[in-house]
Amino acid sequence: MSFNLYKLFFPCATENYQTSTIVLAGIPMDFTVSFKPGSRFAPAKIREVSIELEEYSIYQDKSLYDKTFCDMGDLELPFGNIERSIETIYQFACKLFEEKKVPIFLGGEHLISYPLIKAAANSNDGEFYVLHFDAHADMRDEYLGEKFSHATVMRRVGEVIGFKNIYQFGIRSGSKEEIEFAKKNSNFYFIDKWDEINNVIKDLKGKRVYLSIDIDVFDPAFAPGTGTPEPGGILSSDFFDILLKLKDLDIIGADIVEVAPYYDISDRTALLAAKIVRELILMMG
Amino acid sequence: MSFNLYKLFFPCATENYQTSTIVLAGIPMDFTVSFKPGSRFAPAKIREVSIELEEYSIYQDKSLYDKTFCDMGDLELPFGNIERSIETIYQFACKLFEEKKVPIFLGGEHLISYPLIKAAANSNDGEFYVLHFDAHADMRDEYLGEKFSHATVMRRVGEVIGFKNIYQFGIRSGSKEEIEFAKKNSNFYFIDKWDEINNVIKDLKGKRVYLSIDIDVFDPAFAPGTGTPEPGGILSSDFFDILLKLKDLDIIGADIVEVAPYYDISDRTALLAAKIVRELILMMG
Amino acid sequence: MSFNLYKLFFPCATENYQTSTIVLAGIPMDFTVSFKPGSRFAPAKIREVSIELEEYSIYQDKSLYDKTFCDMGDLELPFGNIERSIETIYQFACKLFEEKKVPIFLGGEHLISYPLIKAAANSNDGEFYVLHFDAHADMRDEYLGEKFSHATVMRRVGEVIGFKNIYQFGIRSGSKEEIEFAKKNSNFYFIDKWDEINNVIKDLKGKRVYLSIDIDVFDPAFAPGTGTPEPGGILSSDFFDILLKLKDLDIIGADIVEVAPYYDISDRTALLAAKIVRELILMMG
Amino acid sequence: MSFNLYKLFFPCATENYQTSTIVLAGIPMDFTVSFKPGSRFAPAKIREVSIELEEYSIYQDKSLYDKTFCDMGDLELPFGNIERSIETIYQFACKLFEEKKVPIFLGGEHLISYPLIKAAANSNDGEFYVLHFDAHADMRDEYLGEKFSHATVMRRVGEVIGFKNIYQFGIRSGSKEEIEFAKKNSNFYFIDKWDEINNVIKDLKGKRVYLSIDIDVFDPAFAPGTGTPEPGGILSSDFFDILLKLKDLDIIGADIVEVAPYYDISDRTALLAAKIVRELILMMG
Amino acid sequence: MSFNLYKLFFPCATENYQTSTIVLAGIPMDFTVSFKPGSRFAPAKIREVSIELEEYSIYQDKSLYDKTFCDMGDLELPFGNIERSIETIYQFACKLFEEKKVPIFLGGEHLISYPLIKAAANSNDGEFYVLHFDAHADMRDEYLGEKFSHATVMRRVGEVIGFKNIYQFGIRSGSKEEIEFAKKNSNFYFIDKWDEINNVIKDLKGKRVYLSIDIDVFDPAFAPGTGTPEPGGILSSDFFDILLKLKDLDIIGADIVEVAPYYDISDRTALLAAKIVRELILMMG
Amino acid sequence: MSFNLYKLFFPCATENYQTSTIVLAGIPMDFTVSFKPGSRFAPAKIREVSIELEEYSIYQDKSLYDKTFCDMGDLELPFGNIERSIETIYQFACKLFEEKKVPIFLGGEHLISYPLIKAAANSNDGEFYVLHFDAHADMRDEYLGEKFSHATVMRRVGEVIGFKNIYQFGIRSGSKEEIEFAKKNSNFYFIDKWDEINNVIKDLKGKRVYLSIDIDVFDPAFAPGTGTPEPGGILSSDFFDILLKLKDLDIIGADIVEVAPYYDISDRTALLAAKIVRELILMMG
Ligand SMILES: [Mn+2]
Ligand SMILES: [Mn+2]
Ligand SMILES: [Mn+2]
Ligand SMILES: [Mn+2]
Ligand SMILES: [Mn+2]
Ligand SMILES: [Mn+2]
Ligand SMILES: [Mn+2]
Ligand SMILES: [Mn+2]
Ligand SMILES: [Mn+2]
Ligand SMILES: [Mn+2]
Ligand SMILES: [Mn+2]
Ligand SMILES: [Mn+2]
Repeated sequence: MSFNLYKLFFPCATENYQTSTIVLAGIPMDFTVSFKPGSRFAPAKIREVSIELEEYSIYQDKSLYDKTFCDMGDLELPFGNIERSIETIYQFACKLFEEKKVPIFLGGEHLISYPLIKAAANSNDGEFYVLHFDAHADMRDEYLGEKFSHATVMRRVGEVIGFKNIYQFGIRSGSKEEIEFAKKNSNFYFIDKWDEINNVIKDLKGKRVYLSIDIDVFDPAFAPGTGTPEPGGILSSDFFDILLKLKDLDIIGADIVEVAPYYDISDRTALLAAKIVRELILMMG
Repeated sequence: MSFNLYKLFFPCATENYQTSTIVLAGIPMDFTVSFKPGSRFAPAKIREVSIELEEYSIYQDKSLYDKTFCDMGDLELPFGNIERSIETIYQFACKLFEEKKVPIFLGGEHLISYPLIKAAANSNDGEFYVLHFDAHADMRDEYLGEKFSHATVMRRVGEVIGFKNIYQFGIRSGSKEEIEFAKKNSNFYFIDKWDEINNVIKDLKGKRVYLSIDIDVFDPAFAPGTGTPEPGGILSSDFFDILLKLKDLDIIGADIVEVAPYYDISDRTALLAAKIVRELILMMG
Repeated sequence: MSFNLYKLFFPCATENYQTSTIVLAGIPMDFTVSFKPGSRFAPAKIREVSIELEEYSIYQDKSLYDKTFCDMGDLELPFGNIERSIETIYQFACKLFEEKKVPIFLGGEHLISYPLIKAAANSNDGEFYVLHFDAHADMRDEYLGEKFSHATVMRRVGEVIGFKNIYQFGIRSGSKEEIEFAKKNSNFYFIDKWDEINNVIKDLKGKRVYLSIDIDVFDPAFAPGTGTPEPGGILSSDFFDILLKLKDLDIIGADIVEVAPYYDISDRTALLAAKIVRELILMMG
Repeated sequence: MSFNLYKLFFPCATENYQTSTIVLAGIPMDFTVSFKPGSRFAPAKIREVSIELEEYSIYQDKSLYDKTFCDMGDLELPFGNIERSIETIYQFACKLFEEKKVPIFLGGEHLISYPLIKAAANSNDGEFYVLHFDAHADMRDEYLGEKFSHATVMRRVGEVIGFKNIYQFGIRSGSKEEIEFAKKNSNFYFIDKWDEINNVIKDLKGKRVYLSIDIDVFDPAFAPGTGTPEPGGILSSDFFDILLKLKDLDIIGADIVEVAPYYDISDRTALLAAKIVRELILMMG
Repeated sequence: MSFNLYKLFFPCATENYQTSTIVLAGIPMDFTVSFKPGSRFAPAKIREVSIELEEYSIYQDKSLYDKTFCDMGDLELPFGNIERSIETIYQFACKLFEEKKVPIFLGGEHLISYPLIKAAANSNDGEFYVLHFDAHADMRDEYLGEKFSHATVMRRVGEVIGFKNIYQFGIRSGSKEEIEFAKKNSNFYFIDKWDEINNVIKDLKGKRVYLSIDIDVFDPAFAPGTGTPEPGGILSSDFFDILLKLKDLDIIGADIVEVAPYYDISDRTALLAAKIVRELILMMG
Repeated sequence: MSFNLYKLFFPCATENYQTSTIVLAGIPMDFTVSFKPGSRFAPAKIREVSIELEEYSIYQDKSLYDKTFCDMGDLELPFGNIERSIETIYQFACKLFEEKKVPIFLGGEHLISYPLIKAAANSNDGEFYVLHFDAHADMRDEYLGEKFSHATVMRRVGEVIGFKNIYQFGIRSGSKEEIEFAKKNSNFYFIDKWDEINNVIKDLKGKRVYLSIDIDVFDPAFAPGTGTPEPGGILSSDFFDILLKLKDLDIIGADIVEVAPYYDISDRTALLAAKIVRELILMMG
């Protein structure tokens, strides 16, 4: 007789941190979301639906069974305390990068990318870039009076790593000020500029890249389960074409954020996130 | 301390009719809908979700803050009385056009376009055209024995303004008779003819155009909240490409109809409508 | 022609603060909710569904048309900042009580009751009691390391007004520690002790009472739209029997909290809250 | 090989009108519903879920297999035309009563009871009573300017059969005027007076009774799928106790109205209606 | 830093089988369900929502922290193969009973009770009874031509342990034949006979009892997430009153079956099941 | 007066088998579905929503009114018994093909294609091909220990008709083994190879083709109501372009499978299936 607690991302994940280079961890923080909260439940839901996917990817002709990766579960956070949560996430990420892990973080809200990327930047000697897929620029200086928010995360990141090291794709929403700032300072690509990804990949080849995917980069038809859906987004099939091109990059870490399962009865948003994670694992290491 | 009743379409709308050229008004009529009723709730829902959108549009690099527009609320209608409702809508629209407003009407069912367009035509000396985006031709002579119905609206409109002044895009459903009629009499473009919009825009340049958008022109994946969804429709990103081309036209009024919020738990249909309204406001005046 | 923006709680509410003794105000804070967030959307939803109810109550043979009350809209809060939010709510409530208003607050999460009740206690010379209906005792000393939480709110309230001045009904969930504390210190009634309400009403007659209703006092069948539903609760018809008995009390203020509209597609939770508010208005003043 | 089109109410219904005394018919009209429309879909949904129920009732120790009843399908109505619809329904019902059928009508909205009861009264020599279960009195003289509406139906019925011949149970909502009218003219029982049903049954014994059940007599927890849900209603188990007592009456016809399937994803409202219909069939004839 | 995979029923469950007398196990079989399938997902969902409940029960003034119990996860079954699944479940249950465990099984469909109870009977010298809570008698001899089905399970159980050893409460649905059989052979209590539970408890005192709870014993208002909901069921508060009386019995095992999470967006059915399990654990051993 | 039981696929379907060449039949089997079951309800739902579609197709300029086709209803199957169900389906399909019918089968799960295609192959002298649209290759040799499963169906089909006679489009998921098998043995087209359909149509011109459409070939945005949704699928508008090209083929039968209505509240999956069926009928015969 055998038993199954369905507790891991894909049944073939292990709990063995030591032997795994690729590690998954849930970061269930959603304290600054201004519109529809609930991304705290995303890591559990993404794991739950991952059993529906194959371990093998036709796209890459590779199987998770040939990879060793571990799922650490969800990081416990001081609930509602933004400052201490950011610090806890930062310390955790620093440890991972110091121990030469290649982590994939399951948000949670987008603000988690700030401590995660800061840790990645710290642990990193050479050039370091962030590739950011999102409907929103997330480049506000502050939001509702707060410096640390899902809507300011890339502004904070840019202050740490330099705005010229940020590449933003899929953007179709923002305030006038933040878009002007982004256009002037970061490498900003409006939603109709996906073709430019080819040039960017060429430029970033051989450099260390952190990938931050806000699920609302997709059109709400494909990812209704998110807090600030924005019509006019990318199609899922087009996204996988782009994602697969990233295998030429040296991705040292990634996050996928803003999945809010309660707004999607069909669970297709979480399933989409799980499939992205599978492809990321297979192209890493 | 400040308070917010979230009552207006975008917080930056005013209630000042006198100073506004662009005016929004809800027309919550859904008495002739044959399949799934409920578009009477659309204006309230579209307003509700509008707070999720930015006032600034990256697409046009313009902000609602630089526009003066007012939201008049919903027109009160004699419930269930089609004839009197049409008359009430007509009188209201006449007043708006006489006072040189550029109105955007939030349906309600598509039948409201008949009194709205009739009023627009009356107030208008020069050439006048209707640009109609819909899954359905709405060109029946009668429907279930009734002359006035969401399924006959463009037939009634054509009788007033001339069928050659109607341009129909996105059409993929209709009865044999109405389609034959439309092909012969109006400027009818089957769903696969979106490219023709460029020529039409060229032809209509400098002429006065009323825009009537039935939300079911979108595929049900993008707009599930509507009474008669029809598979095979346009994608939201493709639609925004087309919509933005219309800025070369002299749009004297517009309606967006057939949003039925109860069939869309995710509210993405209403959000799509709200974003279309934002872009319309920004390209008007 | 007349227009309706459906912006107020019941169409017969006014926006005239000066002439109204009874005032409604939304307090859309949900920053400490540990399980399912979303009560920030409750005031808007309760207003929206209130149009479905009659202004007249058969229960009391009274009509809202014979009352003057105003709906102030929602208080604007510093998003995500618990400390400043509590202070803002407190200042707002102090003003209301000083100006001799009888307020009904629409939450938001239960933590809002702390500043609200503190303000009520301050403005109040004679004896002052809190009548608390809830599935949960909310008597923890701290929750997830935080002193201020929806789960600690009655503990904080007791520290201000004295635990013996708190009466708790409907309680069926809590930690061992908080229940022992409540049993020892407050007037604690387990879910099966609703009959005791008659004695409590006798005791409280002529005294000033603040009423705090957590919607999860109802069974989830009646109020599925809440963050921490707890099976085994009161039926809606039994609740109205109890509520109506409270008309013998001198209710100086009330709140109804923890409605989370997104978890209830049928909107019956918000409708239940709206009906409670109607009965409260009619029994006040 | 055998095939099933699941088209009838209970597989054991026949399509043979001639041999059946008990006949079911759908009346899919919902043109005057002021809040949430959609009861036009109720007959189809009630049939669909009826297959989930047993043909045998433990409550009455009787089986539908021992009854001959037919399901006529849905009456076709001139869509949106209230006047002609009422006339069509009236003619249909007259024919049924003349041919000595005992019909059970599946609404549709409550307005259908007006032509149905008028037809029943016409065909009927002796004393004739209406037993009305509803959350609402439906005793307005007019509603939104209209004489014929789901909110005026019992006023119109009373004008035909005399108000003293109407017994109303479960009522918990109405305008001040209509409730005063009902209290003065009809036999009006507020929601807390269900016990009086015993006396009413004694009074009506041996007399001809038409039963009109508005599904919103139930609490929304039991019947969320309806257009104007009203909290504080009867429990389903209590209702079946009352319904079974009616077997002592001479029920000459019945309707069950205002089921609106789209607002109840669980289909439990339609299932409740189907079970009521089963019990009615078994207590008839 | 600590991590949480939320994998167990209540965080205080262990995975240590050896030291635990009380063991939980999921039996995710739903192969014979005739109407709406999906109970295979119940164990995972019940675990997921259990984190929302307190470990302490006010009802019993006891805490799960004072109990040692383990959650074994879900038994892996040969998918779709009924015969082999029954055998696998039987072997598993025999092992548990032989090793003197007191198991609580989370279905899955009701058919799982057959191998579970057969194993319990085998391992048991003295008198042995089954207490069965259900809307349905489940006493058919066969269903759709099959001997082993959720609709025949108590017939099969009776053949093993004797029908006089089965007590059935809450029953309100069945075929004529099975109800006649049940009335004649088992201890059958119609839905209106809950008061008889007191006498039954007296009779069963000191005897070994297996408890089988079909979640459809509740009214669909309280438990919409089940395959064959039946209106007219017990209220959740009344059920807990009854459940707590069972603490006088020597419950050697229990199952809770037929939770089908996909039909209950609110998750209140699974939450109700989780709360029942908590109370069962606390009254056991 | 006329009545409507809405029982047929499109009101213009007949029940006359003798006079119809094209026949529809529901095959409501879903016993081997491993993830989310429920396709047994698809035929009834597809019929229900078909009334929303026009009988006329603008795509083909043809009307169902000009076709004679019958809807046989649903085949009754021995519930839960896979072996006997396959045999029953096989016998039924053999009869249809022998009597020179051109059937369209409404699944049910994909396993039904095995007996259906076997019957088609038997009745067929010349060359015979299967055109398979699916997200999954369905080429496993066994699944969860079973030879007959929705995940093995094309392997079983290939063993009967030869793998080189199978063309598979839209495939984006599978196990490593089955994909390697499919690539080597069948005509396998990965999701990005839709353009190859033109060549395939050229090759198959004049040959007898059976078309098997698994609804999960669509992206979950377009078809959320299915048991194993797979992100990255085809758009509905692109699919209709492809489907219409098939009119050059001699389609002798077709099935559309794996619609699971309960996971799609909007019913757009069933509507999409109904529209595909309409186009198939119009291109047949
Ligand atoms: Mn974003
Ligand atoms: Mn973002
Ligand atoms: Mn349309
Ligand atoms: Mn239209
Ligand atoms: Mn509470
Ligand atoms: Mn509380
Ligand atoms: Mn009513
Ligand atoms: Mn009524
Ligand atoms: Mn049952
Ligand atoms: Mn059972
Ligand atoms: Mn598939
Ligand atoms: Mn398949």
